[in-house]
Amino acid sequence: MYAQTRTEKDLLGEKQIPNDAYYGVQTARALENFQVSGVPTKFYPDYVKAYAIVKLAAARANTDIGRMSKEKLAMIEKACQAVMDGKYHDQFLVDLYNGGAGTSANMNANEVLANIALELGGKKKGDYHTIEPHDDLNMGQSTNDVYPTAIHVALLLHNDKVVKEAKDLAAAFHKKGDEFSKLLKMGRTEGQDAVPMTLGQEFHAFGSQIDAAIEALVKSEAYLYEENMGATAIGTGITASPGYAEKCAQHLAKITGKPMTLSKDLIAATSSMQAFVMYSAALKNFAVTLSKISSDLIFLATGPRTGIFEINLPALQPGSSIMPGKVNPVMPELMNQICYKAIGNDMTVAVASRDGLLQLNAYEPVVAVAIMETQGLFYKSLPLFRKQCIEGITANEKVLQTYMERSVGIVTALNPVLGYDKTTELAKEALEKNKGILELIREKKLLTEQQIKDLLDPKKLTSPTGPTTIEKKQNLN
Amino acid sequence: MYAQTRTEKDLLGEKQIPNDAYYGVQTARALENFQVSGVPTKFYPDYVKAYAIVKLAAARANTDIGRMSKEKLAMIEKACQAVMDGKYHDQFLVDLYNGGAGTSANMNANEVLANIALELGGKKKGDYHTIEPHDDLNMGQSTNDVYPTAIHVALLLHNDKVVKEAKDLAAAFHKKGDEFSKLLKMGRTEGQDAVPMTLGQEFHAFGSQIDAAIEALVKSEAYLYEENMGATAIGTGITASPGYAEKCAQHLAKITGKPMTLSKDLIAATSSMQAFVMYSAALKNFAVTLSKISSDLIFLATGPRTGIFEINLPALQPGSSIMPGKVNPVMPELMNQICYKAIGNDMTVAVASRDGLLQLNAYEPVVAVAIMETQGLFYKSLPLFRKQCIEGITANEKVLQTYMERSVGIVTALNPVLGYDKTTELAKEALEKNKGILELIREKKLLTEQQIKDLLDPKKLTSPTGPTTIEKKQNLN
Amino acid sequence: MYAQTRTEKDLLGEKQIPNDAYYGVQTARALENFQVSGVPTKFYPDYVKAYAIVKLAAARANTDIGRMSKEKLAMIEKACQAVMDGKYHDQFLVDLYNGGAGTSANMNANEVLANIALELGGKKKGDYHTIEPHDDLNMGQSTNDVYPTAIHVALLLHNDKVVKEAKDLAAAFHKKGDEFSKLLKMGRTEGQDAVPMTLGQEFHAFGSQIDAAIEALVKSEAYLYEENMGATAIGTGITASPGYAEKCAQHLAKITGKPMTLSKDLIAATSSMQAFVMYSAALKNFAVTLSKISSDLIFLATGPRTGIFEINLPALQPGSSIMPGKVNPVMPELMNQICYKAIGNDMTVAVASRDGLLQLNAYEPVVAVAIMETQGLFYKSLPLFRKQCIEGITANEKVLQTYMERSVGIVTALNPVLGYDKTTELAKEALEKNKGILELIREKKLLTEQQIKDLLDPKKLTSPTGPTTIEKKQNLN
Amino acid sequence: MYAQTRTEKDLLGEKQIPNDAYYGVQTARALENFQVSGVPTKFYPDYVKAYAIVKLAAARANTDIGRMSKEKLAMIEKACQAVMDGKYHDQFLVDLYNGGAGTSANMNANEVLANIALELGGKKKGDYHTIEPHDDLNMGQSTNDVYPTAIHVALLLHNDKVVKEAKDLAAAFHKKGDEFSKLLKMGRTEGQDAVPMTLGQEFHAFGSQIDAAIEALVKSEAYLYEENMGATAIGTGITASPGYAEKCAQHLAKITGKPMTLSKDLIAATSSMQAFVMYSAALKNFAVTLSKISSDLIFLATGPRTGIFEINLPALQPGSSIMPGKVNPVMPELMNQICYKAIGNDMTVAVASRDGLLQLNAYEPVVAVAIMETQGLFYKSLPLFRKQCIEGITANEKVLQTYMERSVGIVTALNPVLGYDKTTELAKEALEKNKGILELIREKKLLTEQQIKDLLDPKKLTSPTGPTTIEKKQNLN
Repeated sequence: MYAQTRTEKDLLGEKQIPNDAYYGVQTARALENFQVSGVPTKFYPDYVKAYAIVKLAAARANTDIGRMSKEKLAMIEKACQAVMDGKYHDQFLVDLYNGGAGTSANMNANEVLANIALELGGKKKGDYHTIEPHDDLNMGQSTNDVYPTAIHVALLLHNDKVVKEAKDLAAAFHKKGDEFSKLLKMGRTEGQDAVPMTLGQEFHAFGSQIDAAIEALVKSEAYLYEENMGATAIGTGITASPGYAEKCAQHLAKITGKPMTLSKDLIAATSSMQAFVMYSAALKNFAVTLSKISSDLIFLATGPRTGIFEINLPALQPGSSIMPGKVNPVMPELMNQICYKAIGNDMTVAVASRDGLLQLNAYEPVVAVAIMETQGLFYKSLPLFRKQCIEGITANEKVLQTYMERSVGIVTALNPVLGYDKTTELAKEALEKNKGILELIREKKLLTEQQIKDLLDPKKLTSPTGPTTIEKKQNLN
Repeated sequence: MYAQTRTEKDLLGEKQIPNDAYYGVQTARALENFQVSGVPTKFYPDYVKAYAIVKLAAARANTDIGRMSKEKLAMIEKACQAVMDGKYHDQFLVDLYNGGAGTSANMNANEVLANIALELGGKKKGDYHTIEPHDDLNMGQSTNDVYPTAIHVALLLHNDKVVKEAKDLAAAFHKKGDEFSKLLKMGRTEGQDAVPMTLGQEFHAFGSQIDAAIEALVKSEAYLYEENMGATAIGTGITASPGYAEKCAQHLAKITGKPMTLSKDLIAATSSMQAFVMYSAALKNFAVTLSKISSDLIFLATGPRTGIFEINLPALQPGSSIMPGKVNPVMPELMNQICYKAIGNDMTVAVASRDGLLQLNAYEPVVAVAIMETQGLFYKSLPLFRKQCIEGITANEKVLQTYMERSVGIVTALNPVLGYDKTTELAKEALEKNKGILELIREKKLLTEQQIKDLLDPKKLTSPTGPTTIEKKQNLN
Repeated sequence: MYAQTRTEKDLLGEKQIPNDAYYGVQTARALENFQVSGVPTKFYPDYVKAYAIVKLAAARANTDIGRMSKEKLAMIEKACQAVMDGKYHDQFLVDLYNGGAGTSANMNANEVLANIALELGGKKKGDYHTIEPHDDLNMGQSTNDVYPTAIHVALLLHNDKVVKEAKDLAAAFHKKGDEFSKLLKMGRTEGQDAVPMTLGQEFHAFGSQIDAAIEALVKSEAYLYEENMGATAIGTGITASPGYAEKCAQHLAKITGKPMTLSKDLIAATSSMQAFVMYSAALKNFAVTLSKISSDLIFLATGPRTGIFEINLPALQPGSSIMPGKVNPVMPELMNQICYKAIGNDMTVAVASRDGLLQLNAYEPVVAVAIMETQGLFYKSLPLFRKQCIEGITANEKVLQTYMERSVGIVTALNPVLGYDKTTELAKEALEKNKGILELIREKKLLTEQQIKDLLDPKKLTSPTGPTTIEKKQNLN
Repeated sequence: MYAQTRTEKDLLGEKQIPNDAYYGVQTARALENFQVSGVPTKFYPDYVKAYAIVKLAAARANTDIGRMSKEKLAMIEKACQAVMDGKYHDQFLVDLYNGGAGTSANMNANEVLANIALELGGKKKGDYHTIEPHDDLNMGQSTNDVYPTAIHVALLLHNDKVVKEAKDLAAAFHKKGDEFSKLLKMGRTEGQDAVPMTLGQEFHAFGSQIDAAIEALVKSEAYLYEENMGATAIGTGITASPGYAEKCAQHLAKITGKPMTLSKDLIAATSSMQAFVMYSAALKNFAVTLSKISSDLIFLATGPRTGIFEINLPALQPGSSIMPGKVNPVMPELMNQICYKAIGNDMTVAVASRDGLLQLNAYEPVVAVAIMETQGLFYKSLPLFRKQCIEGITANEKVLQTYMERSVGIVTALNPVLGYDKTTELAKEALEKNKGILELIREKKLLTEQQIKDLLDPKKLTSPTGPTTIEKKQNLN
């Protein structure tokens, strides 16, 4: 075909590149060498944007210190901005799994941004005399600082999404907490009937657990603020220019809106992956928390006839083909599965971070793959979980009430009224005769209906009830 | 638009389905409800084929026992065969993450196969009076037996690929072992100079380790042979017909060529995921083994001037932009990363398998996701590793020889010739004067060149050398 | 104090050893250098015995090939036998955590066995002219073959205990399965009411799951049969005598009663830890299985008033100080915790086995620590679980029956009698009116009491019920 | 025997307790029921102290609000203080593995402290009319708030020890960093020769990595500050008195010297174990970091003749029995093993924390076991690692220098002097002729010795060297 390719070359020789491709020769080689997972950089748009952000910050820093001309910067800025705006993402094709600690991913970004800059600047793709992928886009840089910094930025962008969705989810739980604030129920420890609480308290506690997990995500994000641009190959800054690293950090902070700072020890920063380990742990903690809550919801919704059945989860899809009318807790099940994957991914992060010889950990790509996979699963699934499950939960008030009335556990609350000995007798009789405590009280007319009503006042039953004066003999604890 | 959709309905009501779609209403709902990972069933062609295999076996079994007509079977057989031949895979669109223990994936298969059968049989898609997704494709079945069995089959198909590639890899190592069989080198324990061996022994040992890991993969595959078709909902076989389960197992064995058998306790089989845990462990073991070997290769190839540099790995891509001439061990690094992901995935399998309430483990989908991801990464990357790395490894003979000559470790082999006291003195002197043992021997003329040559005979240096008669005083151990 | 020590020396100089100590100078140094976990070799008696077994096999092999005198062998045999009989264990004091791939543990064994041999032979401890720790007890050996082989033997001895206790546990479940074989109950999938089964089937399925896990333990034990005695330092067998390795394997097999064999590639065997990875996986699988069962028991025993309450676990300790009458499922909770530790330990095994440079994996000690910890926890806790929990489980028959009668799930079984349309109507009405299916049937007099009784025949309800002839329209699946 | 026991009773009946035992009937039952790991509470003295601290805070809070008399408080204070001073620890005998979410451990503390209080107050052990284990020591408390809070306190005490030792270790690395600040060496990435640095920079980077890990430990400690005393059974505070929880938090803060605070949502706090997950992650991060450093040290010390051999680790124990003169890196190997156990323990924490039904996670004991095991291994081994390894490391200056002179990597630093084309030629020639760059420069007389000396100035070679003005063509990156 006529003129459909252009010729590019590198150390290994010449290569034909499709004319409409913005990537260049090194990307082309990587596409041949490393087709492993089938998942390319562009699978995560924020990850693509992160490269544009890092390259923009670097170009501005190089201009600040006088190494790059303002004309070049202007061309590069346009290219970076276009990618930050979501354009040209289809050119970021390198597999997420890279050997060589991310060299291919960095070169993919350098080549694509150079050619976009050229085209937007009225030049032809491949006219590297004007803008050069290495000399200009990678000026004073190395894969060993660009790659981890781009990952940091991508994870921060993703974390904003995860946190946003998690906050909406927590809010949905708290809203249910308010809605259910008057509904008394029996609390359970170790699966056994314990003492009363409200269904509202239970749902608020779900919300509070997520609140705490969000707080940990936000706190742990701070580990990612520290970046190593200017470290170049091993952290000594060879080929970078004096002053550049500090300027670059400032531009990164400005562009991302996050308080990114230059690491104090660039050699340590280039070889160590603690920031990933610590941030990944917060994701795992979120998974651990969300999974416990999901399992609790599944438990509370068991039924309809042979389970706990205190709440109903919305029906999402037709019941089992075999069992008519069966509605399964598919959304919490889905969340559990995502959480289990997240837990496994955290292990991958630990194992990869532990390895890595001397001045560089070449296993950063799989760390990035693992963390981004978890983040992506969360920010995509959390809104589904909220809308298709949590917001539609309803309470089976009658079930809650029946449990309350039949439970022996409320006996604890009767201690101050009837005395410890009497309540113990009642508990024993209730268990032996398979009766409810209130049933017995009514039978024996120990309390009036008004007294029973007072007693079952949620506020009294569900807050500290101990004495505040010294008693002859403490009967209550 | 004119006639571009057909109407289908289920318990939740009617729905428009694109006319060219082979899937039906339940798949359409799942596509709306569960877009989570972005990775559909069709990502793994063998997984799609597995559904066709399972449905084919079930239809034949139902016909064997007289419940399905031969005419229907013929139509279904054609559809299944087409999918087994790689056709219609683009219709298997359900996300790999399913809530509800795989219901959507099963229904996707039922609907697509029904419509293929209809079309190939000269009917219109959606004409479910002739072939019905539930009644015919799911006859005597439940997601709870179809889904795990399809996963078993898919994993078996994948395992064949992994084992095939692993065998080729082991063969490549053994071939290098033969090629390097005459090259003496110093063995190392705990990173410290130990005693002589040949580079051939070292590479054969790499091959042998992979051989052992393959053996474990093959042995552990056997856990997947046991299947639970006929269990239906919980293992009691409700709605399945007597005799069907046994027939189905026979057909599965015949179609897959694997000795698949019916589980002895279908209730246990439906709730327990031990087969996955045990097979996944063999994949993890393969990862652990391959990663150790990859790290050993990286170690042996360190250099060129400040490392061990006993071997050269083929150069795959241009060196670092910052450091001219630098060639990185990108392929073993890639393998390590895949191995780390595999180790994390095994943890996901364990956590998900531990959960799952009573008669069903609803977390099978994430188990399938984790194991198939590992398998896919392996069967895609192993040939790259072999061709682009192992087959091109060369030895730096001079380096090996220099190490041998300078090492103190060969002193052990001189024991029988010079006696223990003399060799100990030699070792001490060599270390103090920073000289080689052979250098000293030559200086001191302790041995002739012929004796030295005999001594360095690889066979003698690298096999059992102890005495076989009682000595006054054992000096050697 | 007068004559309470003896003087021993090694390369680092002289050292005073307590006169009553059977260990020698190298053990003494290790006791000073490595006090880390506080857990010594003797914590696991079978591990101590394993050293005696390995040293006995080695001595016999050396005698067979003519390298050791029969007189010496006789002395060493007595010492080994004494330790195998449980004596002198208090002398095996080295911390389970060893640096140096187990050198201290091996030397501890060499020194203690030498001094026992001396003393039993009428000599004084420390009279190493007669029997020498290195020359005699370590003849033709290296820590690098002794240590892993001793671990293999110890794990095999432990596995016998785990398997024995696991079999007793499975038997206890099956016995309950028989006891409960007539008790109909509703099965549950995804926590939702599914279809009928018997409580006996459920308990038999618990037993069957443990049976399967035991089978995996027994199968995986085979990975430990392969041993590397004769490999010496790196697998080439340097300083070992020809023929010794084969003899040693035979003696090991004879003494242990297990089909132990010499590894085909001793270099691979010395550097690879796959046997541990694969055996550990079976322990993890046991943990995963037992934990699922424990959680199922906790679920079934929730109550007494607000839970499922189908079964009762025996009360083990006084209820909560706060909540009178509360009985917690402490034994399954204990098992779950042990299982979680086991899962973590398996991860330790994987991470340590993946590491380890070239010809030796120096991280074997922590692998041994992790696996033995799991084995010990299991063989100590399984009999408690069986006796204090499983054997005392009782069924709440009335609860089971009430669930059955009220459940909508049994409607599936009515299909063949009443037809699909009628049963669907019934199911709908039951759910809307909050009634039981049988209740409705009786109200509507759809069936006689005899018909109902027939219908509820456990055998019919809990086995394949589908048609075996072609029907006009399949209604049932 | 005469009068050697006293009689105590609980709900299960009477029991004889040894007269000299400070524990009571419930501890005695637990000792019979739960002998699992063989490791009792007293194994960790800080854990024993933690109970005394919690009970002291609770007693003071109860007195503050008027529920406990000052006389009783005085007696209890003495008992708590004695235990905090390290006395009576041999009475804390309950196995670390508890079923029932720690009930036995809490009761062990209640009983022992009651009897100490009695005895120190001139009463007889068992005279519970004066001080009662339940009513007084457990006043307004539940295992469900006491147990997790005691664990929090224990982990905080342990963390102080870990941090202290870690700081000393980091300081030792930094001291070596200063000592080695003038020694130039070649940095390595992906095991391949990269660019120059100083050995001092490398050791400072080790120190900085530990500094960062310490910072994470300290930050994550904060998750443990939040406690739930006053929550009682499920977080509603039933039987606790108003005002007590807030007072208790204040006393805890005062006694521990840590800013402990009451959780905002006590129901969430009682069921969620996020604090443990997040703190455990910091321990894992420390392990990951320390293990990478340990492996780097092992790499740098490989040799003496066939390895990198840039540094020497102190010899700790006699060399291999088989290989004279062999010195192994036993201390970093030991650290690696501890780190691998720590990584496994973190997995146990995640798995256990994910479980736990509704209002309580009954798996706290195994979480405590796992975290305390890791902490104990660290605070015991870190000083050994520092003293027996790090502080004694020496540099092989000649080796470092030879690598520098022969390496091609310093070519990068010649760019500004000789120009990019010339340096590329030099690099090529050096690799082809197997010569050093400086060797070639001297041969070709490209630079004077003074220029070479200037060039090799560590400061210039190991810091940013790029241009700060726009150049016609950037040659350097």
